[in-house]
Amino acid sequence: METSFHAPRLASGAPQPEARHAPPPRYNFIGGHNDPAIIPGDALAEAAARVIRRQAPSLAMYHLGQGRLGYPPLREFVARKLAARGVTGLSADDIMITSGSGQSIDLVNQLFVGPGDTVLIEEFSYSGAIVRARSAGARVIGMPLDSGGLRIDALERCLADLASRGVTPKYIYTIPTVQNPTGSILPLDRRRALIALSHRYGVPIFEDECYADLTVAPDAPPALHALAPRQIIHIGSFSKSLAPALRLGYATADWSVLGRMSSLKGDGGTGALDQMVAAEFLGERFEAHVGRLRTALRAKLDTMIDSLEREFGASIEVWRPEGGIFVWMRLAGDTDVRSLLAPAAAAGLVFNAGPDWACDPESAKSWLRLCFALPDERTIRDGVATFAQVCFEQTGSPRRGDNRDRAET
Amino acid sequence: METSFHAPRLASGAPQPEARHAPPPRYNFIGGHNDPAIIPGDALAEAAARVIRRQAPSLAMYHLGQGRLGYPPLREFVARKLAARGVTGLSADDIMITSGSGQSIDLVNQLFVGPGDTVLIEEFSYSGAIVRARSAGARVIGMPLDSGGLRIDALERCLADLASRGVTPKYIYTIPTVQNPTGSILPLDRRRALIALSHRYGVPIFEDECYADLTVAPDAPPALHALAPRQIIHIGSFSKSLAPALRLGYATADWSVLGRMSSLKGDGGTGALDQMVAAEFLGERFEAHVGRLRTALRAKLDTMIDSLEREFGASIEVWRPEGGIFVWMRLAGDTDVRSLLAPAAAAGLVFNAGPDWACDPESAKSWLRLCFALPDERTIRDGVATFAQVCFEQTGSPRRGDNRDRAET
Repeated sequence: METSFHAPRLASGAPQPEARHAPPPRYNFIGGHNDPAIIPGDALAEAAARVIRRQAPSLAMYHLGQGRLGYPPLREFVARKLAARGVTGLSADDIMITSGSGQSIDLVNQLFVGPGDTVLIEEFSYSGAIVRARSAGARVIGMPLDSGGLRIDALERCLADLASRGVTPKYIYTIPTVQNPTGSILPLDRRRALIALSHRYGVPIFEDECYADLTVAPDAPPALHALAPRQIIHIGSFSKSLAPALRLGYATADWSVLGRMSSLKGDGGTGALDQMVAAEFLGERFEAHVGRLRTALRAKLDTMIDSLEREFGASIEVWRPEGGIFVWMRLAGDTDVRSLLAPAAAAGLVFNAGPDWACDPESAKSWLRLCFALPDERTIRDGVATFAQVCFEQTGSPRRGDNRDRAET
Repeated sequence: METSFHAPRLASGAPQPEARHAPPPRYNFIGGHNDPAIIPGDALAEAAARVIRRQAPSLAMYHLGQGRLGYPPLREFVARKLAARGVTGLSADDIMITSGSGQSIDLVNQLFVGPGDTVLIEEFSYSGAIVRARSAGARVIGMPLDSGGLRIDALERCLADLASRGVTPKYIYTIPTVQNPTGSILPLDRRRALIALSHRYGVPIFEDECYADLTVAPDAPPALHALAPRQIIHIGSFSKSLAPALRLGYATADWSVLGRMSSLKGDGGTGALDQMVAAEFLGERFEAHVGRLRTALRAKLDTMIDSLEREFGASIEVWRPEGGIFVWMRLAGDTDVRSLLAPAAAAGLVFNAGPDWACDPESAKSWLRLCFALPDERTIRDGVATFAQVCFEQTGSPRRGDNRDRAET
């Protein structure tokens, strides 16, 4: 029974108070964290000192006196970075900086989605995109994926079916370049086909490129936005390519959309020092930094895949990602991964349950996501072994790892 | 006629695209900006370099690996700062850092206010508080003010009247220490009376202390939160005492409220560098910095008051504020200040129209707010003279400034 003075005044649907913060678990395979060893502390410190000395008086104004789109040098940098993804002809004034890409998703939902509207999202996708669309009142329809990403045949059937019932979705949300959580990259021919469907049915494409800087292979197909700027709302982030504690995302789209997102962004600005320091650092060092990061992540991915093979053998299905920071996998048989969350936590291990990453939770009940950027390679190996032991104790599988026999403890 | 690909998909009520950003006007008397000459550039640069070198690896984690309440050293600093306002016994775990105090207001509204709920706000108040309450669906009732702040007699009548109709407001939003926009400080006896009414009617007090660091006199009565912690949701900001481009506010309340606000704060964190640099700087230099700022603001306030007297004479009513960064004033006769916005802008001058700072816009149609922290003293003098000329041209008053005769131009 709640006895707080405030409790009688809470709105209906108010959440419970959050649990007090506990330190991160020993084997932390969730949450999109980055590699602490690659954070360029000295270079960021130098960049910070330099840009603050130069720009300090502008801190006295909201938005640095520069308007709601954000710090111009960071917007200029994003425009140059997007040129490398094939998106040419943008200036700083076509870019809006947001407080993480999550804020861009919020603004797009606010702008397009009302209660009862339909949106299309890849069947397995970023939980934040699914949750935010539903919070905005959307009916979310999951679009089937395969190892090449969004299945165009299924999308076409869905759009035709909806059209026959007079329904036009508000957007198709896709992560074409290192899909979250499956790690796939959409081939160029599918990109063109997706754009043709978007055009035919009048449905905007909402392209999220949060992981596109972190592909394993050096070249990926151009961003969707490069192929059809008018139809695409494109967002990205520096959480993965620099640091997630810095809250820096960005969006680009027609001014008919971006100018409205800017009207809605009533937060007084995105953190000035995050913007200024990132711009100062990235302008000189982005390529070199991302190169080091990709090398480090490639080694961790290999360790993760190797550990999964050793510990789980053929009992699991693993999607080898084409980049990024996570592995998507399915456990043996009919296991419900949600039943493993508590025993894993008791063993000091956390993972993302597949149902949280799926438009239809039940369809992913045996799937899970393991993030590998944060732990070092030894922790990855020990963590995967610990997870295999937890799975064995709870489900009887895997019975035997490559290294040892398993026993009930 | 809008021809954008996206237009047919917009939600009803979508705003128009924002106008492209224009440089700030010559005479900028709006927006809560700070004094650029007082921004401590070198000290902030040193603090940034030091804290980033020390803490860089933690940037690899969302929330710096520290949970949703924010960077612990900044929370510890806020707890110490609140002790100086009489709020004792708080630890870092009782404080939540938010992305500006505006985010705290959003979270409180999300937690308490549903469509049709009633909230009480001072009749003239922070426009962001009025707008946000209305966006949350609240019916806003304005509470009368006098030179001592909230009128307790009027509040009591309102609460009794609402109770007789079965209505309990969700909160009483007040800015007791340097009220925005009137600049008053609520005396201790009224603070106690307000708390007694809150207790009797079961209505939480939502206390905003954004300007409390900037009083003219050295001592103000203790924060409401110091007098009745259980009843008060207390928020504050570093926008006024440090820099508004840094997006740093804070909240403290019972965990029954703060823990729920934390549950709702799904933004991935407040900007890490803003938090880290502020904590590193403020921990050592807050008192000295605020001392310099108060001295500078006092001089600008004197210049503003003096300029208004010279240019407008007895034709206007000016509320001399007990601190802060703005003056609240009423023009002669029945002038509607909204009719002056365009001619003032044409003369390079912007001001806050009273109706935007009032629960009942019409009640403040002859009132306006002039912010004086940003412009230097020469700009204040020239700007007030320019404004007097605009007023004369549009309304025939003031006819004669202290310095010159006015003429139609």
